[in-house]
Amino acid sequence: MKIQLPPDKLSQAGPVSPVVMVTCVDAEGKPNIITLGMYMTISSKPPLICIGVAPQRYSHDLISEQREFTVNVPSIDLKDEVHFCGTNSGRDVDKFKETSLKPISASKVRSPLIGECYGHLECKVIGSHTYGDHTLFVGEVVAASVDEGLLKNGRLDIDGAKPIAQKNWDYRTIRRK
Amino acid sequence: MKIQLPPDKLSQAGPVSPVVMVTCVDAEGKPNIITLGMYMTISSKPPLICIGVAPQRYSHDLISEQREFTVNVPSIDLKDEVHFCGTNSGRDVDKFKETSLKPISASKVRSPLIGECYGHLECKVIGSHTYGDHTLFVGEVVAASVDEGLLKNGRLDIDGAKPIAQKNWDYRTIRRK
Repeated sequence: MKIQLPPDKLSQAGPVSPVVMVTCVDAEGKPNIITLGMYMTISSKPPLICIGVAPQRYSHDLISEQREFTVNVPSIDLKDEVHFCGTNSGRDVDKFKETSLKPISASKVRSPLIGECYGHLECKVIGSHTYGDHTLFVGEVVAASVDEGLLKNGRLDIDGAKPIAQKNWDYRTIRRK
Repeated sequence: MKIQLPPDKLSQAGPVSPVVMVTCVDAEGKPNIITLGMYMTISSKPPLICIGVAPQRYSHDLISEQREFTVNVPSIDLKDEVHFCGTNSGRDVDKFKETSLKPISASKVRSPLIGECYGHLECKVIGSHTYGDHTLFVGEVVAASVDEGLLKNGRLDIDGAKPIAQKNWDYRTIRRK
């Protein structure tokens, strides 16, 4: 039996989403972190990805103005930091300082990588579109890196990485079945 | 230690993705199924979602021409059907017939729902953009439904639903930590 959902509950019928920590910088290079569930790959050649950011978020204007960001992939062990960065604003707090997460230099953009995350995509904005209550930013991946121990025969060891999947901001990691 | 990835391996640094089974119809109403990892929500009010489909896929033209599709969310128990629908073409086979998946009528679009999936979004195309080797379709969710037993206090029971997360088409489900 299927239950029809009311308009404010439609999202309950959708899948889980990944969780990523996006960094960006202001004009002076001061970095911020925002946790996002709106992420997907859109192209393999060239490598392009999409993120969704609400216009009222502090990171929205930084990404719009500086035209770059990094995507950092946390394991479930970082769920407290992930939650903090998703529920506080860079207008009020320095999220790197408050979480003790370590910024490390990226190779091709000014936005830093988050050292504790296991995967990193450095992105330059090549398109943006307003859809409903979010802005869709499309980023070209200009460099990428991963933790040394997690690459096996050129593929990510996802079981070792323990990535996060979420719905309603209830965090889970993965298992085989 | 971080390892820089070569251009053809950049995607290894990205997160897992959800897996969804999208249905669409041709002009005569004959349905097809395509499995996609490129999916994300982009807006809550109004409810809008994005999917990515390669132009050479049979479903690409059906969605472009009929301007509608449904998103169906499979549990890990359907991984063989998921894989079949992601690696065969509707030009060659009737995927509902070959998998024995059951088409059921949607409420607001002509594309059918997949009965065995636990969650369903009925979508009308409101935008499309070519980015690299895929087309990004943006769909407005005009109706949604879920399996009766999986809704608890208005929220999806994700542990009971056993959704799929994947990378490199290695399928996993979720666990608490």
